[in-house]
Amino acid sequence: MKIALDALGGDYGVKPNILGAIKATEDFGCEVFLVGDENKIQEELKNHSYDSAKITVIHAPEMIDMEASPALEYRRKKNASIVVCAKLVKEGKADVMISAGNSGATMVAALFGIGRIKGVSRPAIASPMPTQTGFALIVDAGANADCSAINLLQFAVLGSVYYKHIYGKPNATVGLLSIGEEEGKGNLLIKETTKHIRKLGLNYYGNIEGRDVHTGMIDIVVCDGFVGNIVLKTSEGLSKSLFKMIKSNLKGKPLAMLGMLMAKPALMKVKEVTDPDTFGGAPLLGVNGNVIISHGKSNEKAIYCAIKAGIKTVESKALKAMEEAIASNKAIFDEAEGR
Amino acid sequence: MKIALDALGGDYGVKPNILGAIKATEDFGCEVFLVGDENKIQEELKNHSYDSAKITVIHAPEMIDMEASPALEYRRKKNASIVVCAKLVKEGKADVMISAGNSGATMVAALFGIGRIKGVSRPAIASPMPTQTGFALIVDAGANADCSAINLLQFAVLGSVYYKHIYGKPNATVGLLSIGEEEGKGNLLIKETTKHIRKLGLNYYGNIEGRDVHTGMIDIVVCDGFVGNIVLKTSEGLSKSLFKMIKSNLKGKPLAMLGMLMAKPALMKVKEVTDPDTFGGAPLLGVNGNVIISHGKSNEKAIYCAIKAGIKTVESKALKAMEEAIASNKAIFDEAEGR
Repeated sequence: MKIALDALGGDYGVKPNILGAIKATEDFGCEVFLVGDENKIQEELKNHSYDSAKITVIHAPEMIDMEASPALEYRRKKNASIVVCAKLVKEGKADVMISAGNSGATMVAALFGIGRIKGVSRPAIASPMPTQTGFALIVDAGANADCSAINLLQFAVLGSVYYKHIYGKPNATVGLLSIGEEEGKGNLLIKETTKHIRKLGLNYYGNIEGRDVHTGMIDIVVCDGFVGNIVLKTSEGLSKSLFKMIKSNLKGKPLAMLGMLMAKPALMKVKEVTDPDTFGGAPLLGVNGNVIISHGKSNEKAIYCAIKAGIKTVESKALKAMEEAIASNKAIFDEAEGR
Repeated sequence: MKIALDALGGDYGVKPNILGAIKATEDFGCEVFLVGDENKIQEELKNHSYDSAKITVIHAPEMIDMEASPALEYRRKKNASIVVCAKLVKEGKADVMISAGNSGATMVAALFGIGRIKGVSRPAIASPMPTQTGFALIVDAGANADCSAINLLQFAVLGSVYYKHIYGKPNATVGLLSIGEEEGKGNLLIKETTKHIRKLGLNYYGNIEGRDVHTGMIDIVVCDGFVGNIVLKTSEGLSKSLFKMIKSNLKGKPLAMLGMLMAKPALMKVKEVTDPDTFGGAPLLGVNGNVIISHGKSNEKAIYCAIKAGIKTVESKALKAMEEAIASNKAIFDEAEGR
């Protein structure tokens, strides 16, 4: 198993990437290509002991500038770490690429460097989100700010197949995130999507509302990337705000503070379950290769978990299954696009 | 001060409406028209003592069927409680109308029965949402599933003026809910809105992300009604789920349970702050009259708080100020619409 890791990705530089990679090679026996500025990587690597047969440094010091045109940047910067990662996957030298860098840049590199699964209109980020009973996948979690019905239909198929393969739940439920539970209630995009979604043969629940997202009743929450990203970030923000509010309400109340100290293990368990680091990143679905996006604030643990998720993705052979599912539903997608 | 209360509104029948109204007449000295099925209302009223000079029953037994065409329903059901409430406001017999019934029906009754403020394209629901420091108004919280830039621009103006008048914060901050903080990042709607929003002379912060919604840094969160409703319901759902997860993690841990019991007053404080009942409903902004929408699961306290919010709205003279603000920004709205 070979991992291409964007060692320059993420807000904290090469260190968490390198530490996460070393630990992953030890625990999973995988090989990791550390792709990035060789000087920076070697500088950090020499502080640690690692199996040199399992870690290879690839010099690719450039960075995609997200303010510039992504397509132009991609063509111009053949030596950007994320572009080289995509190339390694495309050429079969790596089984999966992982980056905690800008998700837009990862998307561009994957789209141009690897390409899409045949028939896929737009790839989507499938982000795991904690629920009362486990977690749900939000598809799309931010790759596509504006979507049409065919996108949502394909997100439903890709998410469903991925979930089934990775988590071994053949009956994974799919919900369309909307306002109002009744069939067809929502905005124009939802109404259009609703006309076709039942034909896909998924375990389709119907519309769900925001309040259902965290209950665990739905495994795959389908929405456009604008809505998905806002839901994801609102949830992360609210969890933090609630814990902060509890903390600030404890001030000056010694009994309550002591009580909270006693209850802490139970609270930490909830915090752990809702910790985005443990999910190990989100797959980019619809690309013709395995791509895992980790969040910008990834620490060593997050990178380690992202590599673990990447390995699981490769081993599950979800990619092949998604390709087949997209092909077998072609007529429905064509109809949705009015072709 | 005269209140038109839709006594048939809400999931729990006339009882919470009547109890909330009686308490409001006692505490605020207002008069309340209980509009609805007279038999049902009298049946409940006779169980309680109240000031008959302050409570008037108006017989209007019909209900708007939300499955049918709203416009048709409005014309057909002149004796629907919500339609009669709107008429009372339109004719100046009531200062404000309040309903915990279907918000779509309230919107239709207000739109057709009262009409819009001159120049307003679409009214919006401005829903208060708890934050770490107090609360933010989400505009629109669900009235308009599909919006164009002029809608969002007007929501920003209406929300800002309302917030200033009701909460006495002249510098209320306005944020555009999007993905990515950089100016202009987001979907097509956000990009179009961004071209004009700075011209409105509001205390405009710029784009905010989902994670900022609950921090308290923004007073008015502007978004389309699809996104707003999903954010609102996701937040309500997540708060509940987190408390449930904490509870279920306490099971079998007597020490932690005891601790949580000791910390309970502090936790209850947070629960209270985040309780939608205390906010007393959401104003429908952009209608040429005062309209408060309370949530379907309104209990006595929620109705009481909604009446309180209604009185505050009337006394603040926010309506007149919104009218002036919409008129004075006419050129900007026209430009946004390409007129």
